[in-house]
Amino acid sequence: MVTKMVDLRSDTVTKPTEAMRAAMANAEVDDDVLGYDPSALRLETEMAKITGKEAGLFVPSGTMGNLISVLVHCNIRGSEVILGNNSHIHIYENGGISTIGGVHPRTVKNNEDGTMDIDLIEAAIRDPRGEIVYPTTRLICLENSQANCGGRCLSVEYTDKVGELAKKHGLKLHIDGARIFNASVALGVPVSRLVQDADSVSVCLSKGLGAPVGSVIVGSKSFIAKARILRKTLGGGMRQVGILCAAALVAVQENVSKLEDDHKKAKILAEGLNQIKGLRLNVAAVETNIIYFDVVEGAKITAETLCKNLEQHGILVMQESPISIRLVLHHQISASDVQYTLSCLKQALAGVREDTGI
Amino acid sequence: MVTKMVDLRSDTVTKPTEAMRAAMANAEVDDDVLGYDPSALRLETEMAKITGKEAGLFVPSGTMGNLISVLVHCNIRGSEVILGNNSHIHIYENGGISTIGGVHPRTVKNNEDGTMDIDLIEAAIRDPRGEIVYPTTRLICLENSQANCGGRCLSVEYTDKVGELAKKHGLKLHIDGARIFNASVALGVPVSRLVQDADSVSVCLSKGLGAPVGSVIVGSKSFIAKARILRKTLGGGMRQVGILCAAALVAVQENVSKLEDDHKKAKILAEGLNQIKGLRLNVAAVETNIIYFDVVEGAKITAETLCKNLEQHGILVMQESPISIRLVLHHQISASDVQYTLSCLKQALAGVREDTGI
Amino acid sequence: MVTKMVDLRSDTVTKPTEAMRAAMANAEVDDDVLGYDPSALRLETEMAKITGKEAGLFVPSGTMGNLISVLVHCNIRGSEVILGNNSHIHIYENGGISTIGGVHPRTVKNNEDGTMDIDLIEAAIRDPRGEIVYPTTRLICLENSQANCGGRCLSVEYTDKVGELAKKHGLKLHIDGARIFNASVALGVPVSRLVQDADSVSVCLSKGLGAPVGSVIVGSKSFIAKARILRKTLGGGMRQVGILCAAALVAVQENVSKLEDDHKKAKILAEGLNQIKGLRLNVAAVETNIIYFDVVEGAKITAETLCKNLEQHGILVMQESPISIRLVLHHQISASDVQYTLSCLKQALAGVREDTGI
Amino acid sequence: MVTKMVDLRSDTVTKPTEAMRAAMANAEVDDDVLGYDPSALRLETEMAKITGKEAGLFVPSGTMGNLISVLVHCNIRGSEVILGNNSHIHIYENGGISTIGGVHPRTVKNNEDGTMDIDLIEAAIRDPRGEIVYPTTRLICLENSQANCGGRCLSVEYTDKVGELAKKHGLKLHIDGARIFNASVALGVPVSRLVQDADSVSVCLSKGLGAPVGSVIVGSKSFIAKARILRKTLGGGMRQVGILCAAALVAVQENVSKLEDDHKKAKILAEGLNQIKGLRLNVAAVETNIIYFDVVEGAKITAETLCKNLEQHGILVMQESPISIRLVLHHQISASDVQYTLSCLKQALAGVREDTGI
Repeated sequence: MVTKMVDLRSDTVTKPTEAMRAAMANAEVDDDVLGYDPSALRLETEMAKITGKEAGLFVPSGTMGNLISVLVHCNIRGSEVILGNNSHIHIYENGGISTIGGVHPRTVKNNEDGTMDIDLIEAAIRDPRGEIVYPTTRLICLENSQANCGGRCLSVEYTDKVGELAKKHGLKLHIDGARIFNASVALGVPVSRLVQDADSVSVCLSKGLGAPVGSVIVGSKSFIAKARILRKTLGGGMRQVGILCAAALVAVQENVSKLEDDHKKAKILAEGLNQIKGLRLNVAAVETNIIYFDVVEGAKITAETLCKNLEQHGILVMQESPISIRLVLHHQISASDVQYTLSCLKQALAGVREDTGI
Repeated sequence: MVTKMVDLRSDTVTKPTEAMRAAMANAEVDDDVLGYDPSALRLETEMAKITGKEAGLFVPSGTMGNLISVLVHCNIRGSEVILGNNSHIHIYENGGISTIGGVHPRTVKNNEDGTMDIDLIEAAIRDPRGEIVYPTTRLICLENSQANCGGRCLSVEYTDKVGELAKKHGLKLHIDGARIFNASVALGVPVSRLVQDADSVSVCLSKGLGAPVGSVIVGSKSFIAKARILRKTLGGGMRQVGILCAAALVAVQENVSKLEDDHKKAKILAEGLNQIKGLRLNVAAVETNIIYFDVVEGAKITAETLCKNLEQHGILVMQESPISIRLVLHHQISASDVQYTLSCLKQALAGVREDTGI
Repeated sequence: MVTKMVDLRSDTVTKPTEAMRAAMANAEVDDDVLGYDPSALRLETEMAKITGKEAGLFVPSGTMGNLISVLVHCNIRGSEVILGNNSHIHIYENGGISTIGGVHPRTVKNNEDGTMDIDLIEAAIRDPRGEIVYPTTRLICLENSQANCGGRCLSVEYTDKVGELAKKHGLKLHIDGARIFNASVALGVPVSRLVQDADSVSVCLSKGLGAPVGSVIVGSKSFIAKARILRKTLGGGMRQVGILCAAALVAVQENVSKLEDDHKKAKILAEGLNQIKGLRLNVAAVETNIIYFDVVEGAKITAETLCKNLEQHGILVMQESPISIRLVLHHQISASDVQYTLSCLKQALAGVREDTGI
Repeated sequence: MVTKMVDLRSDTVTKPTEAMRAAMANAEVDDDVLGYDPSALRLETEMAKITGKEAGLFVPSGTMGNLISVLVHCNIRGSEVILGNNSHIHIYENGGISTIGGVHPRTVKNNEDGTMDIDLIEAAIRDPRGEIVYPTTRLICLENSQANCGGRCLSVEYTDKVGELAKKHGLKLHIDGARIFNASVALGVPVSRLVQDADSVSVCLSKGLGAPVGSVIVGSKSFIAKARILRKTLGGGMRQVGILCAAALVAVQENVSKLEDDHKKAKILAEGLNQIKGLRLNVAAVETNIIYFDVVEGAKITAETLCKNLEQHGILVMQESPISIRLVLHHQISASDVQYTLSCLKQALAGVREDTGI
């Protein structure tokens, strides 16, 4: 019998807090498609301020935030975007920028730390002068923190260099900032500084910040005006959406300060994992709230069996490959959840018999 | 000073009721992208039952509901859809089925009552056997009630005929049922019967039913499985979306019964308008909650000035053309709001001086 | 036994003349993708001169000419084009502007004479100011002569009015001039005058002019530069294409003067048809080289049987509907072919027995 | 004054031979869009036979051949194709599979020899069972010989392995065989064996084979039927195209046997280059008719100046990067052209002064 539920699959699984539920119950709303819903407007203004941009727009998901951003910057047929081969946009968004948007992706290898080599980015830029066989590069995308690289953060210095490169070649820069607050907290740098050179940023409110639904994209007024039309085209325009925005505003106000704790818990969990024979990970690579670890060959259990074993103890995790597992910390994981998880893992890796699964 | 606010622009402007707010504050939720949010599941199951289909899917808007439906049925490159030249999909959804989905629209004239002549539909179907210059017709779209034709309803008999035609030619049938509950109430026919032959229906919950946000699309399990993937691609997958679904479920349970009242109020308003010199409308055409009327040439006021005048009295309406105005009734318009509106209109059409606007 | 072959299916069926074959055998050529093929350049320059435009580009077909033109003018996602509901682009080009190009078509009714009412065109233009639910109208397309309306010609006056309308609203004007030389000859107006206001024109060389392959699109230098890239994208860039261009140049030089004869032969054929009991057509509507006629109900033969009957006599025609047939004249149809055709038709409509087909 | 013209830019620059010109002047033709042009049919049948496939289709270019092939295999929205990061389709075809076709590319690193590691291909395949965030892999593309990797050939063994992998995962295999005859000759393996497992092959006739224009795609009858429609959509359907097909048929019959000579001349040229101080290349990598070489740092001339210098001596080459140059041999380059080129290169690398360019 499972007596606990420790959901480490993602930071998207958090439940709305009491404060968020109260905010939703009392939210001032209006038809956000016809005009401006006051709660939406409040959230969008706040997010623009935090990110240092002119304007913001609430969207139902980070996927739509990225899709709209790429499509607005690449609104001319024949556009190419440069992005990491391990980026969320390239791997986990159904290829929508091509299949829905007709944009051609050109990938550059993501290093282990989430960066792409600047000279490789520059080499990938297509110079269409006099050429008729190339699409036109219009956009570079970064992701900070970079989920698929273990939540690694891109530094201000690195981001600035990419920003310079974009400017030099007349390109736009979009930052998938689904977890930009995690990066900001981990680096000790304000979000606005981290995205200073970006023409657009997509910020998720329903990951570490714990809002029930939604992302906000930010950029210039002109960018947001185009984004608003495209949001309508995609079907992301919602009526009394202030309900969700009110909760998201609470998330921004209350939960940014909790991210540091998430990172600490991640570090404790990572260090604990590192002590367990049969598991392997790079503790130093755990910079934010995401942990990737491998079950080594020769361990007493496979990754798949380990996941099932944990589930039987009420711990949900995400298997990423035949040998690797992902854990994501968030504000609804307590210190004791971390200890409980470590204890279950130790037990599983110790005397477990594969045939019974326990 | 405006002491009243009578918002007749659309039935999308309703504010959530106390019951909806309570439902949102207490909704049981989970990550609807990773698995199934229980509140979303409950709403989707209920809508499938009401419409007599196998499965349902919550989407952020009617526009996304229609877009997904058309794109799932027309998932092969080179598809054509037949739809009304006055349909919401063709006129008010940014041409998304083409600009995002690459589907070629073939329009057939909508008659005043919202129907398209069956023989014109049949003539528009492309028979690709042996032909290499035609796209392939894969879908017919109806809209019931038909917003742009004054909220007119399509009868069961008519819909059945189109359903037969679709079957005969191996085509799918999608019904844009943004206001299918209005049609159901006006015709005295259950929704499930009205959409019996449809392969998919998009039903809006934030119009007459008054939910804050959202539509549900329904169809076969296989249709919904494809729709779920496409919803993710478009960015319509939301996390703890049960918040919104809980409110929408209240809307379905509480507000369907109020639609008959909306239609009665529309009829009273229409008849009152018909008595006012300078206005012209077809009272018989007011079958549901939508009224279109013209300001006749030679009236003491233009449509534009009339709209401004009404706004100064706290009445919001939608100007549709240089001479025509649209009014939409909903459950937050009272009988006295209707009388107040008529009284303001009479006054405006009587002694008004254009230069002052009053 | 068939002793004659009279191919009236289309003016695309002509065989290259001896002069064209000689030109091809001796054409000066180069790699037209890497640089400029001299024969291609010569043809493009000549066509630009004839049409009064800055530059031209050879393309493999009229379909590609139209596709490129529409896509260059509508190169921004979210574009809408206004065109005739009976136009070649809308009916016979696979819906490629949507299915390949993502452009949303808005059709306006083609009158019998091929025109669209100017006020209907104007009403169809979307004014996107402040609106988020409309695609943006960027282009109007005309077709001259209009194939599907029986080869009717658009007058200079009409075309100028549409040109004015386009300018007034900041739209581009494309003319599908597949048979613009026919219109020019029939109206007695130079091609350059007929397309004066057009931003692009697609001119077919392998229809009445008899070249084996190809069309040329013309427009500003900037339009052609973009068209050249898109031609490459679509795969229409060809290497030593001067072969085809040399033949096309002969076609332009030798065959324009023969079009008047084609029109005369069409008139004679039409008047002859008009004398045959059981056939119906509007002789006055035969303005160029295309004839549409109906087999009336109660005739001694159906359209389908008539087509087969004619084929047995070596006459190929195109059945367009259960009752209508299309004939197209060209320079390889002689006066005696016309008389032979009339004689076969008379015979077929006279004593024929449906069961034998003779 | 230039007394010679040695065009080594590409094998696309060949001029039609006398035999080809005669064939064009006498070609039997018909309207290939309405029915089948006999010369087109003859060529398509011959190419199907040579490649061991059911049917063939003439297209204006290799780019269209690849575009049609990818789009037919990926005809369902949401498709992904796996292809080399250095493949012609990915680099030199305007990104058309995405920008025109909405297909999402997933690139795998091309090794120096043109292969992609089999396990990397397999890892890139998306298993969509139960997943809603992945596009669906439908196609793997190979290129043989691989232009951008120096004309390296893929062996039968390698191709078979990729074919097996494709079958195992239910994927289609397309081979960009623009220079498949070069690979066949170099490997001593019939074309039909080399493409045995391919569902489609695009073969260029206007590269080493010297036809003025065109490629043929081959595959199953069902594939070609779909390809024919898509060719029409793209505007690649041509009327009396037998003109070009007749020349192409001569190319196939006469010039395959000359490719071995081209490869020998390439080897001689490569070995000669290898002797010149200041140039660097891998002679062993020259397997067919393409040579890439670098101008080393510290040489007496830059690559750019070298290209200009050669042009002044009537030798045209293709600069590929700031330091590398491409040479392509073909049947219109003689043994003495090779010696002349080597002699000019030696001279240029010897005493040249950069400021004068000589």
